[in-house]
Amino acid sequence: MGGAALTGCSTTEKNGAAPGANLAGGEDDGPDQLGKVVSAYGERSPFEKAARLVPDTKTPATASSRTPLAETYGIITPNALHFERHHAGVPRIDPADHKLLIHGMVDRPLMFTLADLKRLPSVSRVHFLECAGNSGGEWGVKNAPDVQRSHGLASCAEWTGVPLRLLLEEAGVQKQAKWFLAEGADACKMSRSVPIAKAMDDAMIAFAQNGEAIRPEQGYPMRLVLPGYEGNINVKWLRRIKVASEPFYTKDETSKYTELLPDGKAMIFTLPMDAKSVVTRPSGGQKLTGPGFYEITGLAWSGRGKITKVEVSVDGGATWKLAQLQDPIYSKAFTRFRLPWTWDGKEAKVVSRCWDDTGYQQPTREELVAARGMNSNYHCNVLKSWIVSSDGSVTNA
Amino acid sequence: MGGAALTGCSTTEKNGAAPGANLAGGEDDGPDQLGKVVSAYGERSPFEKAARLVPDTKTPATASSRTPLAETYGIITPNALHFERHHAGVPRIDPADHKLLIHGMVDRPLMFTLADLKRLPSVSRVHFLECAGNSGGEWGVKNAPDVQRSHGLASCAEWTGVPLRLLLEEAGVQKQAKWFLAEGADACKMSRSVPIAKAMDDAMIAFAQNGEAIRPEQGYPMRLVLPGYEGNINVKWLRRIKVASEPFYTKDETSKYTELLPDGKAMIFTLPMDAKSVVTRPSGGQKLTGPGFYEITGLAWSGRGKITKVEVSVDGGATWKLAQLQDPIYSKAFTRFRLPWTWDGKEAKVVSRCWDDTGYQQPTREELVAARGMNSNYHCNVLKSWIVSSDGSVTNA
Repeated sequence: MGGAALTGCSTTEKNGAAPGANLAGGEDDGPDQLGKVVSAYGERSPFEKAARLVPDTKTPATASSRTPLAETYGIITPNALHFERHHAGVPRIDPADHKLLIHGMVDRPLMFTLADLKRLPSVSRVHFLECAGNSGGEWGVKNAPDVQRSHGLASCAEWTGVPLRLLLEEAGVQKQAKWFLAEGADACKMSRSVPIAKAMDDAMIAFAQNGEAIRPEQGYPMRLVLPGYEGNINVKWLRRIKVASEPFYTKDETSKYTELLPDGKAMIFTLPMDAKSVVTRPSGGQKLTGPGFYEITGLAWSGRGKITKVEVSVDGGATWKLAQLQDPIYSKAFTRFRLPWTWDGKEAKVVSRCWDDTGYQQPTREELVAARGMNSNYHCNVLKSWIVSSDGSVTNA
Repeated sequence: MGGAALTGCSTTEKNGAAPGANLAGGEDDGPDQLGKVVSAYGERSPFEKAARLVPDTKTPATASSRTPLAETYGIITPNALHFERHHAGVPRIDPADHKLLIHGMVDRPLMFTLADLKRLPSVSRVHFLECAGNSGGEWGVKNAPDVQRSHGLASCAEWTGVPLRLLLEEAGVQKQAKWFLAEGADACKMSRSVPIAKAMDDAMIAFAQNGEAIRPEQGYPMRLVLPGYEGNINVKWLRRIKVASEPFYTKDETSKYTELLPDGKAMIFTLPMDAKSVVTRPSGGQKLTGPGFYEITGLAWSGRGKITKVEVSVDGGATWKLAQLQDPIYSKAFTRFRLPWTWDGKEAKVVSRCWDDTGYQQPTREELVAARGMNSNYHCNVLKSWIVSSDGSVTNA
């Protein structure tokens, strides 16, 4: 890194100003009046405009909004920009009225308020959440002009909550139990079936997100977090867990969130999100200001464990370079990768590929189509390329 | 953890309701109307009221606000609740007008815009920031009724920016250079002297905080982050770095932010914050609802490296238990600690102590007073106790 040539940066010479010229007073001297006073709850700069992309739809309560990945940094997604996917809108829940029931095949049914949960042993872990349909457009036409539209149904946060295992052990899960139903308190009572094994592994009932109470769009006052599993099954506004011997075959795991194969059969309960990576800078809609040094950066994640390696190509995959991964690397979380690059001003095709600690390698589109055909819209994790044109503009490849 | 007895939690029996009673429809059935639609920029629940504590002062532009540590979770402080300390208020800066100049004892003076910085190799790291005066009241009367007032001048975030070393290497730091001046663009041009060695170690020019652009109160569009060093020297709204052979002896490192010893001499440039810990739950102002299980939790941090151990006592230091530390443990960052506790309903005195990877142990007040006397208000890191009374109320010890 220390050897990177910073060509292209503005120097005093290029700006035509002598050192210290911006310190001489007047407009360049910075504000000379007292600024804003301290405040109870801060806001971002009025010059910052990053926003979730909200679709133009007649049913905005059953829609999704997308994280502006190209305008985020590090691995934490600000809560205000965490992607949304709702099936009946965001309910307004007074935590004083909300309870979580655990029942079914348990020895001792239990009910918990938010205050109860906060008394219990908790954990904090950084995990991504990703809609199963994220980057689904990459199966086919690839018409998304930017990374927000192509990959913006994924975000990452530090979640704090109580391990579900602890609650289930207290309730006494019976021997024949293999699944549980997770049900939300939204108007449609969105519900999914989850293997008990996941509950006993790393599932948590989260009540906080990036240090504060979980946001309404993310399930306030509590949600299920199933690290690495497709977003939909991380049930928000969680009000009920019913333990059973079989899955419940709810709407969202039968008519939806299944994957139709070429032979007409559909895969069901394909829960973990496979390893995926995407370059966020340079990415579609951006413009390089001329030849010179640029850091290529992006995000990689896997629902099966830790990202172990990311490679980046600037020639459409003919040659690859090892990217640097930001430490520490969390399991089932965004991993930030970076690669120094000096752009020569000629057309370039930028693409990344990643591996996780199961040995799995992110596939090309051709490989995924060969394995699963063209009928599915979910769990698409193919390589994503961007074209940098000689004028610096970046477009979908 | 799995063996913790969850006595005190509400069960269906205690609530007088049968399992499933809250699912039968009516008021307990959750909202049955479509909720709020997707939105471009989210907000927290209207039921959440955590706020920075703003002082009642006639000079609120030269004041501090405090993080509600007892109402944060994990190790990330939400940007809206990150503590503030301003010397001339928060300037309104259009990033298009802002430049960072590097000059003085360098071969090639350089000037950088925000856009320039974003093209350069960057890093993301989680670090705490703490005002040198945080918990200063613990020297003496200890009249702070809660942890926000006693320890709220500390926060923690994921910072993203460019290593200062990279910029200085590009500028060509000359051999005799030992210090640099960091100057802000606020009305008072707040400035401090920093050893070059820190620049070459882990200093960064940060432009992002918890995934989004750095907040105005934290130095938008760019600030100096000197991991582990007292807050004041992490100059905000950074506009100038001047390299020199000697420190500059600015106002904030001579008349202030020094430590007066019993013999009348003052220590200067005491930059790293020593290891500190504090229990945030139970803490002053809270109320336990009766005997039973509670998780004791709090935060520990050190400006010299990683926290290696935290112990908690519930009998005022007579006996200690090893607390669990949340992984991964970052260097110079908040570390969340937790200990299961079953309260017997009798008066308890809760206190924590920590160690860092230099072997340093957080001192008692008596030890600190013996070493440094009673004249200083800065760098107080003594043990902090809370009294849990038999009625469950928690007060300052």
